[in-house]
Amino acid sequence: MPQPCLIALDWGTSNARASLLGPAGESLATCSAALGVMAVQTGGFPAALQAICGEWLTEWDVPLIASGMIGSRQGWKEAPYLDCPAQLEALAASLTSVETGLGERRLHIVPGLRCQDSGGQWDVMRGEETQVWGSGALRSGLCVLPGTHSKWVGREADGSLTQFRTYMTGELFAVLSQHSILGRLMERGPYLEDAFLTGVHRGWGNPAHATHVLFSVRTAGLMGNLGPDCLADFLSGLLIGMELASALELFQTGDGSAGPADICFIGDEALCARYVTAWNCVAPSDCPVVVQKGHDASERGLWNIARAAGLLG
Amino acid sequence: MPQPCLIALDWGTSNARASLLGPAGESLATCSAALGVMAVQTGGFPAALQAICGEWLTEWDVPLIASGMIGSRQGWKEAPYLDCPAQLEALAASLTSVETGLGERRLHIVPGLRCQDSGGQWDVMRGEETQVWGSGALRSGLCVLPGTHSKWVGREADGSLTQFRTYMTGELFAVLSQHSILGRLMERGPYLEDAFLTGVHRGWGNPAHATHVLFSVRTAGLMGNLGPDCLADFLSGLLIGMELASALELFQTGDGSAGPADICFIGDEALCARYVTAWNCVAPSDCPVVVQKGHDASERGLWNIARAAGLLG
Repeated sequence: MPQPCLIALDWGTSNARASLLGPAGESLATCSAALGVMAVQTGGFPAALQAICGEWLTEWDVPLIASGMIGSRQGWKEAPYLDCPAQLEALAASLTSVETGLGERRLHIVPGLRCQDSGGQWDVMRGEETQVWGSGALRSGLCVLPGTHSKWVGREADGSLTQFRTYMTGELFAVLSQHSILGRLMERGPYLEDAFLTGVHRGWGNPAHATHVLFSVRTAGLMGNLGPDCLADFLSGLLIGMELASALELFQTGDGSAGPADICFIGDEALCARYVTAWNCVAPSDCPVVVQKGHDASERGLWNIARAAGLLG
Repeated sequence: MPQPCLIALDWGTSNARASLLGPAGESLATCSAALGVMAVQTGGFPAALQAICGEWLTEWDVPLIASGMIGSRQGWKEAPYLDCPAQLEALAASLTSVETGLGERRLHIVPGLRCQDSGGQWDVMRGEETQVWGSGALRSGLCVLPGTHSKWVGREADGSLTQFRTYMTGELFAVLSQHSILGRLMERGPYLEDAFLTGVHRGWGNPAHATHVLFSVRTAGLMGNLGPDCLADFLSGLLIGMELASALELFQTGDGSAGPADICFIGDEALCARYVTAWNCVAPSDCPVVVQKGHDASERGLWNIARAAGLLG
């Protein structure tokens, strides 16, 4: 095994994932634990770090860096948000560090980003900025990070992140499936693309009627237009269709053309595949589409930030 | 007490409410029980009826009529939907009746209504049609029935219900407050109108970005723009603002003017007051606004239907 150079942690709300990275930033080993921020009591983070990757800490005296909710108010220590537009170099110069209880070794925490829209609405992210800077996407365009709280991030040719928007798509799908009347008729089974695309088109065509159109998951089931095994994918499509319609309006380019120059989806493979399917159905342009695994993007982003911060010696 | 003429039941998902009505349709007595459709096993409806208003059944040999979810597939017996546009007389001619176990006496169940929009989406209601026909509203205009599933109902000068739309506003408020991240920072307290109206304006101005704008309940709390005691009313305002924007677009009059001739809110007093507050802030016209208590509208509607059906002799 090459000599390890960095321990990089993607430390989120529910899970923590650590990677041991080699001289070129390559992944030498990974491990993960259900020790996300919500599972750790105040004061318990040094012990959690040991539990996640204690063996590596003993064996390798390398720098430590983390991004994600670990830098939130509920995390180890709050790493104040940086404002957009933001550059990787500015982020790397703003790391917050904490004592780990391992002698002089500190854990460096990446700040989150925030931005404000013309109406004064704030938006925030923690962890996704690291993935965007590790995505290897073309330098100018849109990055989409599907998930519980999907992020759409605009990126300029100079590498800066200009603005971003959060969509509650994943969380809405979960709470509506589990806790609302829309879940009552659902039977879960294999992915049904026709039902998904029916939802995408309905959502894409009716973004301004969201809280009405969602009820069609109920009526389509009641009236027999869709079988019980179709309803979850139909709801998924509706929510993603509405997200695409809204985001493409908010991120449309200044010259009035509707599409971005290129688009990169970063995250879970199956979920990104849904987004790409939806995108290919409704997107207004044939711009290049790239897909990147979320874990790979986190590792590469943490590596890039650590290097810019001078942590790699 | 005047001679009772009708036992009228508003029999919904969670609760059943019975009224004993006099010769002019006036309410002589009411009672209610948590014996909604979801609380009653198959075959248990005759006993539930006894539990709700057994004394009246023994004492008064008068006709029985009910509307609401009691006519759904999960209710006592399915009363097939009538299509919109629908007239009161057609509804009264389509009652479904069931044996009550009380000799010859039957319970007459009012059908629900359904309609289909130009995109093929079905919408359904059960119980609200009865309230609209009992609302005493001007004969032409819009009726709004706020609730778990808010209904917007268009009514013509000839008394027919032309079309309607459901909004999941109440249920979204409940599931997002109780089960999503938006509830995490909320502290419930007295109604705060400023926070509510901030939400109304934000929702009204951004109906096409619903699943993004909802996240502002999180960020407004995180960034300190709104205190924890404001967040529930802010969310309520957001959802109602989006509902108003969508409904006014869908129900705009054929001549292109945005407002209805008149509007009637039917339901719970405090909830209707929120809708009227929101309406007065953002509505595009100064059309007359009427508010009607939901229970009164149900009683009056059941009376009107029973009379049209010839049940009152």
